[in-house]
Amino acid sequence: MTTDAVALSADLIRCPSVTPTEGGALLLLERVLSAAGFACTRVDRGGVPNLFARWGEKGGKTFGFNGHTDVVPVGDAAAWTHDPFGGEILDGVLWGRGATDMKTGVAAFVAAAVDFVRATPPGGAIVLAITGDEEGPGKDGTRALLDWMTAEGEAMSVCLVGEPTCPDHLGQMMKIGRRGSMTFYIEAEGVQGHSAYPHRARNPLHALVALLHRMTAQPLDRGTQHFEPSTLQITTIDCGNPANNVIPAKARATVNIRFNDAHTSDTITHWAERLCAEVTGQTGVTFALTTEVSGESFLTPPGAFVSLVSRAIVSETGVVPELSTTGGTSDARFIKDHCPVLEFGLVGKTMHQVDERIDVAQIEGLKRIYTRILRDYFA
Amino acid sequence: MTTDAVALSADLIRCPSVTPTEGGALLLLERVLSAAGFACTRVDRGGVPNLFARWGEKGGKTFGFNGHTDVVPVGDAAAWTHDPFGGEILDGVLWGRGATDMKTGVAAFVAAAVDFVRATPPGGAIVLAITGDEEGPGKDGTRALLDWMTAEGEAMSVCLVGEPTCPDHLGQMMKIGRRGSMTFYIEAEGVQGHSAYPHRARNPLHALVALLHRMTAQPLDRGTQHFEPSTLQITTIDCGNPANNVIPAKARATVNIRFNDAHTSDTITHWAERLCAEVTGQTGVTFALTTEVSGESFLTPPGAFVSLVSRAIVSETGVVPELSTTGGTSDARFIKDHCPVLEFGLVGKTMHQVDERIDVAQIEGLKRIYTRILRDYFA
Ligand SMILES: [Zn+2]
Ligand SMILES: [Zn+2]
Repeated sequence: MTTDAVALSADLIRCPSVTPTEGGALLLLERVLSAAGFACTRVDRGGVPNLFARWGEKGGKTFGFNGHTDVVPVGDAAAWTHDPFGGEILDGVLWGRGATDMKTGVAAFVAAAVDFVRATPPGGAIVLAITGDEEGPGKDGTRALLDWMTAEGEAMSVCLVGEPTCPDHLGQMMKIGRRGSMTFYIEAEGVQGHSAYPHRARNPLHALVALLHRMTAQPLDRGTQHFEPSTLQITTIDCGNPANNVIPAKARATVNIRFNDAHTSDTITHWAERLCAEVTGQTGVTFALTTEVSGESFLTPPGAFVSLVSRAIVSETGVVPELSTTGGTSDARFIKDHCPVLEFGLVGKTMHQVDERIDVAQIEGLKRIYTRILRDYFA
Repeated sequence: MTTDAVALSADLIRCPSVTPTEGGALLLLERVLSAAGFACTRVDRGGVPNLFARWGEKGGKTFGFNGHTDVVPVGDAAAWTHDPFGGEILDGVLWGRGATDMKTGVAAFVAAAVDFVRATPPGGAIVLAITGDEEGPGKDGTRALLDWMTAEGEAMSVCLVGEPTCPDHLGQMMKIGRRGSMTFYIEAEGVQGHSAYPHRARNPLHALVALLHRMTAQPLDRGTQHFEPSTLQITTIDCGNPANNVIPAKARATVNIRFNDAHTSDTITHWAERLCAEVTGQTGVTFALTTEVSGESFLTPPGAFVSLVSRAIVSETGVVPELSTTGGTSDARFIKDHCPVLEFGLVGKTMHQVDERIDVAQIEGLKRIYTRILRDYFA
């Protein structure tokens, strides 16, 4: 008896688990995993449902999978050609919210793990850390699982995140790292005045333009061995002054930075503080800088774990995966503080869109790849 | 019998003529002027009251005075120590809205003109063009008077505007010109996108910062013979994007420019259009530029008229007036297209403020100066 990853995917899609609703998805997985001998624990925190499952003994060589069962809202429900929570399969295509991101990825690694421990019980442990809040704030999702694992002495030797990573066809890309992400909220304060008498005022907008020009005039770097160049984007500037004969007292800007391993949020904050101080020295306008760090950059450099995953992909698909660090953030940013972490999954083309869907052959292919990774890891 | 400029000032202050309310002020002046043989015509337009008065024949040598009887609102009425419309005189000080800007100036030139034509009828004409909307939009104020005069074949050989011009003491400063004023409303349009993938978007804020940096990095000029350097002030930048992971599609900025006689609104518009085109060429972000011209710069260069006014000030006060082109705009910007125009009046320290007030001695001094100007002009 083997586990049908496609049927499990469809069953999961039928659970309406829009973040942070559990929707029956984790209950379903808990049933499947428990039946195969996995010890399951719900690690809910702050209203977020999370599931931890382990096969084998704690403390030894442990392979980890990470993923999420929550999905983004359906958006314009009327625009869908199939029920987003119907899990319909038509002409080899599975339709529904979560078909790529990432109920299918979860189903593939759950099916692979269940079948693997039944067929060839490994000399070590397999751990599944599955959250119900990856698409939301993420404060009480994978972080809660990792906190609980640390407290319980649970650990992973390595971890594979099942997020969709392939742009066009299965096997094309795996993620060996991610850029960090941080946001500056900048408030410039000058001295209000009349436009005709600027020498009696201090225009915070001129200082803000000077500061933002310095921030954007030069790239932060030219990229590193495994990363593309860091990017900085001004996402808003606001002042709200309706009077064109008045120099305003205050103005605000928001700057979002995606940074590679040439930086940390600390080095970038120091850089920004230095630029602010320079402009203040020249203009007298002061800046209040509020920093919000979404995640540091991380990298699992090419080595044994990368080679193992890469070889399994080549064997099953004939495609050599690109070792990428592109894209936004994922929960791998939390896991990297605990063990080497990689990301590999399906083609993500339709994620977060109306008519999200996937070829069922991809789900089966992904299960085979995950199975081969487990076999090679425990060989 | 002479006309008491101080009493006339107090009477005018008692007329509650907040823009564009007539409040009885022009009616009072019309009574005084008609009694002295001035031909008076109300030139109301668009709900704005205006008064034209001429003594003498049309078509010959004509001295013009210009001023306004409207006043700005009282602001915080409770903060006044005297009734803003009471016209109280205490210890040689006249209190009330319009005590400096500029019911007193109007009273001084009306009193001077009335007494002058009675005592020594001049070989020419005296024209008074007095508006009830200088503090408001100004569309139907002095402009309406000038339009009407042109249509009627009325002209002025020279014109003196009675606005307050002295910073600290009477005689200190006259205005021989004013800077021009114009405003650019700039809308930048790029391509929306995700902060993590800026290469797929075109950030209008980066282009706007680049444009505004070019506009502010260098001064427009270093001043001219009679003018201080032109100034450019960004008065607002707005985008209103609440999402720090989204690159917005559009952003707006407003730029106000006060320019001297090295420029016209046309040359500055061409300069701005060129900078926009440069930044568009580099970024692909397009700019829509809307231009609003409040007034061109103007200059009545030192010469016969300037010398005449200047000498009269020196004779009456012992002070040599500075020939200034500083400050905001005034109705002189309209008059300069018709004849040489200068501005001279009281100390403007308390204008537009709570407890606006003036020493009555200044009003009497100003009447003497205006009288001497008329005498010398028609000598
Ligand atoms: Zn996902
Ligand atoms: Zn005025």
